[in-house]
Amino acid sequence: MLKVVLLGTGNLARHLFDAISKSDRAKIVQVVGRNLNDLAWFSHHTAVSNDFNDVFEADVYLIAVKDDAIVQVSKCLAGKPGIVAHTSGATDMDVLIPENKGVFYPLQSFTKGRELDFKNIPICVEAKKESSLQILKKLACSISSNVQEVDSDQRKKVHLAAVFVSNFTNYLYGLGHEICIEEGLSFDLLKPLILETAEKVQTFAPRDAQTGPARRNDQLSMQNHLSLLKNEKHIALYKLLSDAIKEVYEEKL
Amino acid sequence: MLKVVLLGTGNLARHLFDAISKSDRAKIVQVVGRNLNDLAWFSHHTAVSNDFNDVFEADVYLIAVKDDAIVQVSKCLAGKPGIVAHTSGATDMDVLIPENKGVFYPLQSFTKGRELDFKNIPICVEAKKESSLQILKKLACSISSNVQEVDSDQRKKVHLAAVFVSNFTNYLYGLGHEICIEEGLSFDLLKPLILETAEKVQTFAPRDAQTGPARRNDQLSMQNHLSLLKNEKHIALYKLLSDAIKEVYEEKL
Repeated sequence: MLKVVLLGTGNLARHLFDAISKSDRAKIVQVVGRNLNDLAWFSHHTAVSNDFNDVFEADVYLIAVKDDAIVQVSKCLAGKPGIVAHTSGATDMDVLIPENKGVFYPLQSFTKGRELDFKNIPICVEAKKESSLQILKKLACSISSNVQEVDSDQRKKVHLAAVFVSNFTNYLYGLGHEICIEEGLSFDLLKPLILETAEKVQTFAPRDAQTGPARRNDQLSMQNHLSLLKNEKHIALYKLLSDAIKEVYEEKL
Repeated sequence: MLKVVLLGTGNLARHLFDAISKSDRAKIVQVVGRNLNDLAWFSHHTAVSNDFNDVFEADVYLIAVKDDAIVQVSKCLAGKPGIVAHTSGATDMDVLIPENKGVFYPLQSFTKGRELDFKNIPICVEAKKESSLQILKKLACSISSNVQEVDSDQRKKVHLAAVFVSNFTNYLYGLGHEICIEEGLSFDLLKPLILETAEKVQTFAPRDAQTGPARRNDQLSMQNHLSLLKNEKHIALYKLLSDAIKEVYEEKL
């Protein structure tokens, strides 16, 4: 049974806490954080502390705080016996102060109040020492069925890819929402299409699933669409994305 | 029992055929198309013809051909007793030649070989005459539980919105795919995130679900991401989308 101390009390910390609590191969022995209100929730289930210098001994210290607080928190763990791992997609492993260090990055977008099955969440692991990597893998496998070794350079690229496929995609959903509302129509009209588009690439490569006017180089439809847009930024976006799509398929010819 | 003639034999025609065949309130009495190979498939289930001047009498004529062939096909139906409706998102109802006309637009992305439950597919209906609208609604309700009255102007806007939330989104999935492959990583890493992002907006408004560096106006992360991109178009896209997101949330302050 791996002993884990969780540092941080935010959204990701709660999701990690829930997932590890359900595992029979790991347990959270302590949660450490500054915010007493947030700690209160954890205190019903395990030991808590708001003093980063009062941290229990454990096999793994999981740092789930904001990116700019990671180094500071890791300093407090310098003399500890276990592996110190952060959970950030965008942060180098090497910024961690302790020698025995690693990364434990769950690749998902976590929303307060939204339950997620951790089994399906990919966890990217990395460690300085091979033996530590094995322990982080064991912990990851105890909560997820999709565990991958990803080094710091790769992880930054994956984090960038996540921005494209999730943050930017959600912004486009927002544009669709805006258009529906302006026309007095329900956003429900677009929901099945949004879901199907995401489901399709679970089995098809995105390049093979591409459809639409730009894919067909259908100039008339694209001009019609552009004439409906008023916002300069939306026009620029439509043009840039259409050009980018055309380019992909021109290359294929 | 509504009698329907289906004109066209492509992807959408097949999906419509399957859906209407399962309905107990409508039936396809004939399929008309030019391509004999495609007609062969339908001929196992109903009457077929490759002559657009040899069309049966019916309550509804559904034109499911390419946009630029709609007018031509509708000409052949000018003397017919039923409602002539096209199924296109981007085409005005008024281009149809027959007087008794309408639109029957299923808002979904159809892929060959991919089964879809029509029950969840929104159908946008419109008609010149009120009595025809009621018949198109009856037909739509017999295969879908999401039927909405949408006029030609609204429909063009919805079609534009669909390009943003589906075609452009799929292009962004393609970028994510590209990044994973370049790094020697599996696209499987991004699949759960893609799905969760789409599922989230089934219940949350997209604006409330927005996360990421641009949402937080996290300059450092955005600069790090830009330094990882080499393709000029991808850089322009990252900047434009990030600026657009920042703008939305600055407005909110």
